[in-house]
Amino acid sequence: MLDQQAAGGPRTPGTATRGETVPTVPPAETAADAVDVTALLERGRTLATPVLRAAVDRLAPPMDTVSAYHFGWIDAEGNPAAGGGGKAVRPALAVLSAEVTGAAPEVGIPGAVAVELVHNFSLLHDDLMDGDEQRRHRDTVWKVHGPAQAILVGDALFALANEVLLELGSVEAGRATRRLTSATRALIDGQAQDISYEHRDRVSVEECLEMEGNKTGALLACASSIGAVLGGADDRTADTLERYGYHLGLAFQAVDDLLGIWGDPVSTGKQTWSDLRQRKKSLPVVAALAAGGPASDQLGEILAADAKSSDFENFSEEEFAARAALIEEAGGREWTAEEARRQYTTAIEALDAIDMPDRVRARFAALADFVVVRKR
Amino acid sequence: MLDQQAAGGPRTPGTATRGETVPTVPPAETAADAVDVTALLERGRTLATPVLRAAVDRLAPPMDTVSAYHFGWIDAEGNPAAGGGGKAVRPALAVLSAEVTGAAPEVGIPGAVAVELVHNFSLLHDDLMDGDEQRRHRDTVWKVHGPAQAILVGDALFALANEVLLELGSVEAGRATRRLTSATRALIDGQAQDISYEHRDRVSVEECLEMEGNKTGALLACASSIGAVLGGADDRTADTLERYGYHLGLAFQAVDDLLGIWGDPVSTGKQTWSDLRQRKKSLPVVAALAAGGPASDQLGEILAADAKSSDFENFSEEEFAARAALIEEAGGREWTAEEARRQYTTAIEALDAIDMPDRVRARFAALADFVVVRKR
Repeated sequence: MLDQQAAGGPRTPGTATRGETVPTVPPAETAADAVDVTALLERGRTLATPVLRAAVDRLAPPMDTVSAYHFGWIDAEGNPAAGGGGKAVRPALAVLSAEVTGAAPEVGIPGAVAVELVHNFSLLHDDLMDGDEQRRHRDTVWKVHGPAQAILVGDALFALANEVLLELGSVEAGRATRRLTSATRALIDGQAQDISYEHRDRVSVEECLEMEGNKTGALLACASSIGAVLGGADDRTADTLERYGYHLGLAFQAVDDLLGIWGDPVSTGKQTWSDLRQRKKSLPVVAALAAGGPASDQLGEILAADAKSSDFENFSEEEFAARAALIEEAGGREWTAEEARRQYTTAIEALDAIDMPDRVRARFAALADFVVVRKR
Repeated sequence: MLDQQAAGGPRTPGTATRGETVPTVPPAETAADAVDVTALLERGRTLATPVLRAAVDRLAPPMDTVSAYHFGWIDAEGNPAAGGGGKAVRPALAVLSAEVTGAAPEVGIPGAVAVELVHNFSLLHDDLMDGDEQRRHRDTVWKVHGPAQAILVGDALFALANEVLLELGSVEAGRATRRLTSATRALIDGQAQDISYEHRDRVSVEECLEMEGNKTGALLACASSIGAVLGGADDRTADTLERYGYHLGLAFQAVDDLLGIWGDPVSTGKQTWSDLRQRKKSLPVVAALAAGGPASDQLGEILAADAKSSDFENFSEEEFAARAALIEEAGGREWTAEEARRQYTTAIEALDAIDMPDRVRARFAALADFVVVRKR
């Protein structure tokens, strides 16, 4: 998978069309190629899910049911459902990080569960704040169970995350909770920035990266280090693993921003030009606006007019396609693809600062490849 | 103050009218009489407020401003305001509890601040969930700054509470955070119960007490023990202090439920018959409904009809007064006043199980007197 990408080399902007693979270039010939990522993800899921379900089962009715709906374990009528639950990269990272210290992967389980609980707390609240009616092809909790339950159950998951860690009663659990709390504060800061940027005409590339670092990087950083912290890693090791996860999160988000505009609806499950329809000031947009030049200027004028348009919802496919073409012409698509590569490289290089078994290092690299090289 | 109450003895139901003092009877002749409660409350406020403000100042804009509005430090236009902030019983308890272990009151400060942050997180979210437009005579945060900010800033205060404790980095801080997390889970459970009870015809006295224990008792329990935990108290001492605080919270809530029906609008700042207007299934109501007998039956029929009435908002003063009279006739008022006394006594007696300096014990008793004996 990775070699095919590497052999293809970086694409020139404008040649890639919707549905192709994001042109991220991991270093050729790494031990990561030998890692079975599917098995690694499955391991994280298998270890974390039963503990996560047991934790959620502790919630009093109806919060247990509302949570089970959110996690995809039951449908809106309360019947058992397939589960969904996404790619489970965070649990995989959390249990893998325990192995950095030589501990068993199981040591990372409470960390994996706590991170998943915080992630889902933020989804519940963000969906309500943003008025998003769909997530993972299903109605969001506030849409099905009402705003009060979305607030309440989000709060409960947040509290439960701390409980799952702190009931371990160890010094390491206290340190892990402190790091999780910092990540949660960053998540909240990111959401505050996201909301405030909606009301602004211009957002700088730096502001966008800061927001995405808060919203995506911080929790992936925590996931990548929390198992190690629970396994007794020192602060330097934990900080280094956080750096890996933070930049991996930024790489992931850059790819996600590309998919948000040029992604194939069949694989993303979203509408065509999804982020453009939502007027999201994502990386390709802010980079294009910051680039200068005729296409950049024209894009700025058009988006400024769009912001005032009362007819925006009825725009045609062609109108969104024209905006996407301008973003690409101004260099926003290429810059974002390169940014994904830069962040990916920074993430991988961060790992060099600390000792860990080669097998574990290769797995971190393989998970990074998996996160960044996705279908769009 | 207390001797006057004690001398008066318990009132017979029906003789007390709006505006009188709640007939709670603390034991006569205690060392608590010698305690300057005003100074004790002032000490808690003086120690906690600067640290609370510094913590809130850490929040990124606009969350710092929204919080400052919520705490009453600024008005809706951003101008400095008098402060408000209530009676500050929780901070007083938190710093006092540090003295149980022989530590300085200052040791309890991070605990006092964390408890205040959790309390205010829950107010922000509960006001939004309940649709309450006013708190402490001011528009609530969601009313002024919108629902998204109420959710977001509530989340931020919750995270900040954990941060303030965990950044101490001590084993004691980990234990304190664990207890605070349990209290927060109870708060959330209580709110879930409160919401579900709204949709039910009948709520038992036990269910009402459980809900009030979760919503009011648990955090007061945490406030009463968190300073001691930070001062190195063992679990038995902390559990005992929690028991004091829990029952004090239930006593407080019983008084509050009396004020919610018969309180003087001038002192409560609420409408006349406030809880009846909100159809709250508070202790006097559930006790009256559970009592049986003609008044109880009649009340049940009237409230069932009210629940279906589309004209409820336009009911006259006399109509609410008639319902209040039925509650009183069925014994709901007297039962609740007695319940306040029972819970108060249980709280005071809990303190006997542990050693502490007489001066500290007297202060706990004096704060209990203050909390329970209030103007209605």
